[in-house]
Amino acid sequence: MEVKSITEQKSLLATLSPGKRARLRRLLFDYGPGNGTLMLLPIDQGIEHGPRDFFPNPASKDPEYQFSLAAEAGYSAIACQIGLASRYYPDYAGQVPLILKVNGKTDIPPSDDAFSSTNASVEDAVRLGADAVGYTLYVGSPRQDVDLHQLKGVREECERYGMPLVVWAYPRGRDIDKKGGQVSFYAIDYAARMAMEMGADVVKLNFPKFDPEKDKDQPAPYNEMDVSPEEAVRQIVESAGRSLVVLSGGSKTDDETVLNHTRTIMGAGGSGVIFGRNVWQREKSEALEIIGQIKETLLSNVRRIP
Amino acid sequence: MEVKSITEQKSLLATLSPGKRARLRRLLFDYGPGNGTLMLLPIDQGIEHGPRDFFPNPASKDPEYQFSLAAEAGYSAIACQIGLASRYYPDYAGQVPLILKVNGKTDIPPSDDAFSSTNASVEDAVRLGADAVGYTLYVGSPRQDVDLHQLKGVREECERYGMPLVVWAYPRGRDIDKKGGQVSFYAIDYAARMAMEMGADVVKLNFPKFDPEKDKDQPAPYNEMDVSPEEAVRQIVESAGRSLVVLSGGSKTDDETVLNHTRTIMGAGGSGVIFGRNVWQREKSEALEIIGQIKETLLSNVRRIP
Amino acid sequence: MEVKSITEQKSLLATLSPGKRARLRRLLFDYGPGNGTLMLLPIDQGIEHGPRDFFPNPASKDPEYQFSLAAEAGYSAIACQIGLASRYYPDYAGQVPLILKVNGKTDIPPSDDAFSSTNASVEDAVRLGADAVGYTLYVGSPRQDVDLHQLKGVREECERYGMPLVVWAYPRGRDIDKKGGQVSFYAIDYAARMAMEMGADVVKLNFPKFDPEKDKDQPAPYNEMDVSPEEAVRQIVESAGRSLVVLSGGSKTDDETVLNHTRTIMGAGGSGVIFGRNVWQREKSEALEIIGQIKETLLSNVRRIP
Amino acid sequence: MEVKSITEQKSLLATLSPGKRARLRRLLFDYGPGNGTLMLLPIDQGIEHGPRDFFPNPASKDPEYQFSLAAEAGYSAIACQIGLASRYYPDYAGQVPLILKVNGKTDIPPSDDAFSSTNASVEDAVRLGADAVGYTLYVGSPRQDVDLHQLKGVREECERYGMPLVVWAYPRGRDIDKKGGQVSFYAIDYAARMAMEMGADVVKLNFPKFDPEKDKDQPAPYNEMDVSPEEAVRQIVESAGRSLVVLSGGSKTDDETVLNHTRTIMGAGGSGVIFGRNVWQREKSEALEIIGQIKETLLSNVRRIP
Amino acid sequence: MEVKSITEQKSLLATLSPGKRARLRRLLFDYGPGNGTLMLLPIDQGIEHGPRDFFPNPASKDPEYQFSLAAEAGYSAIACQIGLASRYYPDYAGQVPLILKVNGKTDIPPSDDAFSSTNASVEDAVRLGADAVGYTLYVGSPRQDVDLHQLKGVREECERYGMPLVVWAYPRGRDIDKKGGQVSFYAIDYAARMAMEMGADVVKLNFPKFDPEKDKDQPAPYNEMDVSPEEAVRQIVESAGRSLVVLSGGSKTDDETVLNHTRTIMGAGGSGVIFGRNVWQREKSEALEIIGQIKETLLSNVRRIP
Repeated sequence: MEVKSITEQKSLLATLSPGKRARLRRLLFDYGPGNGTLMLLPIDQGIEHGPRDFFPNPASKDPEYQFSLAAEAGYSAIACQIGLASRYYPDYAGQVPLILKVNGKTDIPPSDDAFSSTNASVEDAVRLGADAVGYTLYVGSPRQDVDLHQLKGVREECERYGMPLVVWAYPRGRDIDKKGGQVSFYAIDYAARMAMEMGADVVKLNFPKFDPEKDKDQPAPYNEMDVSPEEAVRQIVESAGRSLVVLSGGSKTDDETVLNHTRTIMGAGGSGVIFGRNVWQREKSEALEIIGQIKETLLSNVRRIP
Repeated sequence: MEVKSITEQKSLLATLSPGKRARLRRLLFDYGPGNGTLMLLPIDQGIEHGPRDFFPNPASKDPEYQFSLAAEAGYSAIACQIGLASRYYPDYAGQVPLILKVNGKTDIPPSDDAFSSTNASVEDAVRLGADAVGYTLYVGSPRQDVDLHQLKGVREECERYGMPLVVWAYPRGRDIDKKGGQVSFYAIDYAARMAMEMGADVVKLNFPKFDPEKDKDQPAPYNEMDVSPEEAVRQIVESAGRSLVVLSGGSKTDDETVLNHTRTIMGAGGSGVIFGRNVWQREKSEALEIIGQIKETLLSNVRRIP
Repeated sequence: MEVKSITEQKSLLATLSPGKRARLRRLLFDYGPGNGTLMLLPIDQGIEHGPRDFFPNPASKDPEYQFSLAAEAGYSAIACQIGLASRYYPDYAGQVPLILKVNGKTDIPPSDDAFSSTNASVEDAVRLGADAVGYTLYVGSPRQDVDLHQLKGVREECERYGMPLVVWAYPRGRDIDKKGGQVSFYAIDYAARMAMEMGADVVKLNFPKFDPEKDKDQPAPYNEMDVSPEEAVRQIVESAGRSLVVLSGGSKTDDETVLNHTRTIMGAGGSGVIFGRNVWQREKSEALEIIGQIKETLLSNVRRIP
Repeated sequence: MEVKSITEQKSLLATLSPGKRARLRRLLFDYGPGNGTLMLLPIDQGIEHGPRDFFPNPASKDPEYQFSLAAEAGYSAIACQIGLASRYYPDYAGQVPLILKVNGKTDIPPSDDAFSSTNASVEDAVRLGADAVGYTLYVGSPRQDVDLHQLKGVREECERYGMPLVVWAYPRGRDIDKKGGQVSFYAIDYAARMAMEMGADVVKLNFPKFDPEKDKDQPAPYNEMDVSPEEAVRQIVESAGRSLVVLSGGSKTDDETVLNHTRTIMGAGGSGVIFGRNVWQREKSEALEIIGQIKETLLSNVRRIP
Repeated sequence: MEVKSITEQKSLLATLSPGKRARLRRLLFDYGPGNGTLMLLPIDQGIEHGPRDFFPNPASKDPEYQFSLAAEAGYSAIACQIGLASRYYPDYAGQVPLILKVNGKTDIPPSDDAFSSTNASVEDAVRLGADAVGYTLYVGSPRQDVDLHQLKGVREECERYGMPLVVWAYPRGRDIDKKGGQVSFYAIDYAARMAMEMGADVVKLNFPKFDPEKDKDQPAPYNEMDVSPEEAVRQIVESAGRSLVVLSGGSKTDDETVLNHTRTIMGAGGSGVIFGRNVWQREKSEALEIIGQIKETLLSNVRRIP
């Protein structure tokens, strides 16, 4: 089955209120690679996976490492939870923008009924001088009713304070596991649309993975589609409509894959990347090197005007 | 068993507060086919089913398609969720009225305990210039207690702001499945009454389906009734009392069925139709053609003065 | 085992705040049969059972039927939910008092964990000019904690606004089913006391039924008591203390039973009846006839001064 | 294993705010037996067990009986729920102090997950002129999280209004059943401490029962302790620290046991008793006689200055 | 696998608001051993385990014992729940700082779904003159969503009132039991990071235990790590970042272990200890002796400037 491309997206910034526009513009143009791109550094793994993610590069256990990296390497923003934002961000305030993640959870319990409750508020973000708020939405979880309602509150506060809303849109839960899994094209495509429909300004998505065995469990017509990863990412970006899309990296992989993913998302009309472990699980000099390459790749593949 | 007709319904508009009346009148007379009819375009399928509904007509994946269609073809209103209303409606504000749907969910989990939590508020609707609010009520779900209480809050805000309330009344959940299923005459008839009793100004219902195998599981006397679809729809409309009724289409079907359903609902004293996939899963010229036919059918079968 | 009678109840009205007293007096003396009696017309069956209850008398499907009946026949009050109260009561405002029922549910799911959430508020009742509020309490349900707490909120608002509180006290849930069932003497007796202790001004109860097979499952000493229905009703009325008691009819039965029940409740010191299907599942002339007989029976058997 | 006595408790009244002190002093000195004792009459059995508790003495079914008994016999206070407090207490206001119980439940469902939600508020108690508030805490129930949080709200309101807080501390739920049961020394001892730590001014406890079979299921060292009932009660009173302790009676027993329990609790440093069925399940003259004996026993065994 | 040390932590006090700084400084420098250390006396065992913890030293059952001990021996603070804080702290106000624990529970139900609801508020702490608030977080419990959201409210109130937040970070629940248990290196390390990320000013942790059998169930790389207890504690303290760490003792052990643990935590860059049963399960003279040794050990092993 063939799916044709849709028209180019209209500017998102043009649809935003002054507060959201001012803040999001800062990330897109004033900090980071600029030119409408987003290079984001996430450091929520200490909550989501525990300290073990820091073991490959012990220096990374001290949040100072990521904050100084973000500031020195010139990131569009650093994303973290309230504890780090309160204790480590102050030294870097004004040097790199902050995205305050307002919900999170450990990965100790299984994710059959995944839901992340809020542990901070949009008002916290305002007080800390953040330029955006991050929210993890578990698309398709059995507890989606609680999740969507909680997101309503966060979105409304974002509108009230003119704070851009970045949604980590993750398909999750026992039911998506039965329909091809959480990284299938179907799952990620649905997540992209869902985040956009819920009012996300920026959507963070995982790179879809193809697995012949699992893919046939996807609902039609996904179960019979034969698309390249590039085409899949292009369609996913389309599903997010006017919301900007950034792609995440997941666990550490080789450099070529990192840069290829960067090229793919930009070529598909995305706005950037949010790589964590692939960056800070390296010693500083190595980290700075890959960051430089990512930045260059981002800038040389810009297709969308935000 | 024979069931006789009841008297014609009194004007709904006459019972409404000024705010509700002003807004609902706009949909019934100033936009769309007019003359007291409702031709509504729903675009909540991206949430309820995911992007797959857009595949038959890739252009439909861009919400621009539905918004421009609604404006150009002259719809009574377009119904969508907060994300689309915030990003796509502004360009069409004043050209076609907006119904903001305030709850929704993905169809990834099973619907045994169906419940859609709110992801937007009536105040959002006011702010966006909407002329009505949409709410999905899962009639007979095991979680009806949460649903009815949530609807209470929405209804009260609607009264406070003079905002008409459109209830998507869907029988759903494991228990209705045991009593003949969610599209039986019994189920739809109950849903119609329920929505009216809960204060809906407009009720959206599915066309009942007859299935000898399942129908015998309906509670008496439905299990032994032998009525034509036309008669069933007539009775269902009666069950909604003074609330206006619009019929939905469901998945795409042939044109004759679409127009027949339109005739049936109007002949039964209904006020219009809300067809989504049957309209926008076509290329624009084809879509405009069927819309023209629907509009004509609506206007030539008006029986009720709203 | 013999149980002796207690003293006559003191006046309830004498213990009420001015607002409650003014409103309840209206029902007891100014409307309906008067002389301290209550003849109430319930029309909540469209929610609680669905439209099927209207089939025996199709005219009854249009709420106009019950409203006009209540006004013409001179009822003490009509009891219905928010939808009917908003759309149909306005034409009868001032002609017959309104009891706004503030909670309800469909009977599609089983009642093992019965609970009815509120779909309207006491403030709604005030706004609509109602003279009392109705609340369904499922005595002994596994969810009694939620129910009793919700009732607290309703009762407090009733006190705030001087609104009489009528409690539909129904034993319900999987546990009462194991202890003799929901219409046993034990169950109804407990429900009467419970409603009174929770602050009901008027308690609506079902007529107890005797069933040798089930009755032995009641807790002692009910399982071994041998009392006549009249004696049981008398004791049940005593259990409600100073709260007024009205008896309900349930599904349609023969006229003699209707009038016998009326005599029994009045003879037991009750204040009246609340018959729905037994009245409006008849054509108007027949309905008016039985209403006349009920009214006469009420007035000729008054024993308690409210 | 031997457990030694601790020092005498300091005055509780000395630690209380003026409002609490004024009200509690009234119960301890101005009403009832006085001299720092508490003789309380509970009448919450109509909710907790249903009307069957009134059958041994039919007169007791009319709350007038207990209210007049409390006033005539000179009780420190009468404890009841909102319905009785609203309808029966007004006639006795000023004659006997009121303890308004703010939560309760029927015993129809099993108590595996025992929890009593509030059906009245501390503000209700203030409005009704009560001198204390009663709260039932189910110590060790699987729903303790909801219970303790609810108690927080009641305690805070008590502090706000200067209202003494009486906690009915009952070990309950499926887990305590596995650890020796709800009336073991372990269970009651834990309950006493828990209520004190949660801020109770007065703790109501059951008399511990010894049962060789069940007692060995208690956690160490209780499972191997060999203490007399008197010693157990003494230790339990110590566990309640500065909170005053009153002992309850449970179902009706013989007079000697009633008076023995009274002596035991007073000798252990307790402040009084709260006997219900043991008192009002008798005809008035008999009731007054046992009350006289209880009062005398209380006054002749005072050990603690409150 | 080798894990290297990270840089020394920056001063926590320097990052705190004036209110938090003033109060926490009091604990660190003005009371207790001083010099930036924390010697805390917990007395929440009466709630968490019941009175049985007081049996080894009956005098300890009277909270007076712990309060006087804390004041006389010169503790940095005493930590207890609302009941003790209200009734026993007033006599010691100004002599020893108070940490008000705002949540807690009995250990009667199993801890598969561990969650402690709040029974007091930060405002209570302010009113009582406390210098910090304590909160128990069950890291990795299936109910972490409720826990983290509740902690959000407490943290925000702490920020509002300038009240330091001490988090008891306990891995707990059925899932951590499957991943090596609640005292594994993995579990404690995760808990340390979690508390810090949630905004704790001080984190209370258990001493990790090594158990070859269970340790292999830990997620990688913990399951294959071979570190000494000292090294594990050092890494755990690092995981808490700028939050101060105090180590708890658990059930009573021998003196050498107590002092060794004290040395270990201080050597690892921790700030002190919170030993309860190891201290007050001794007669006063013995207790004072071990306290003296702890104090000396603390002061002679200071490594971190808070």
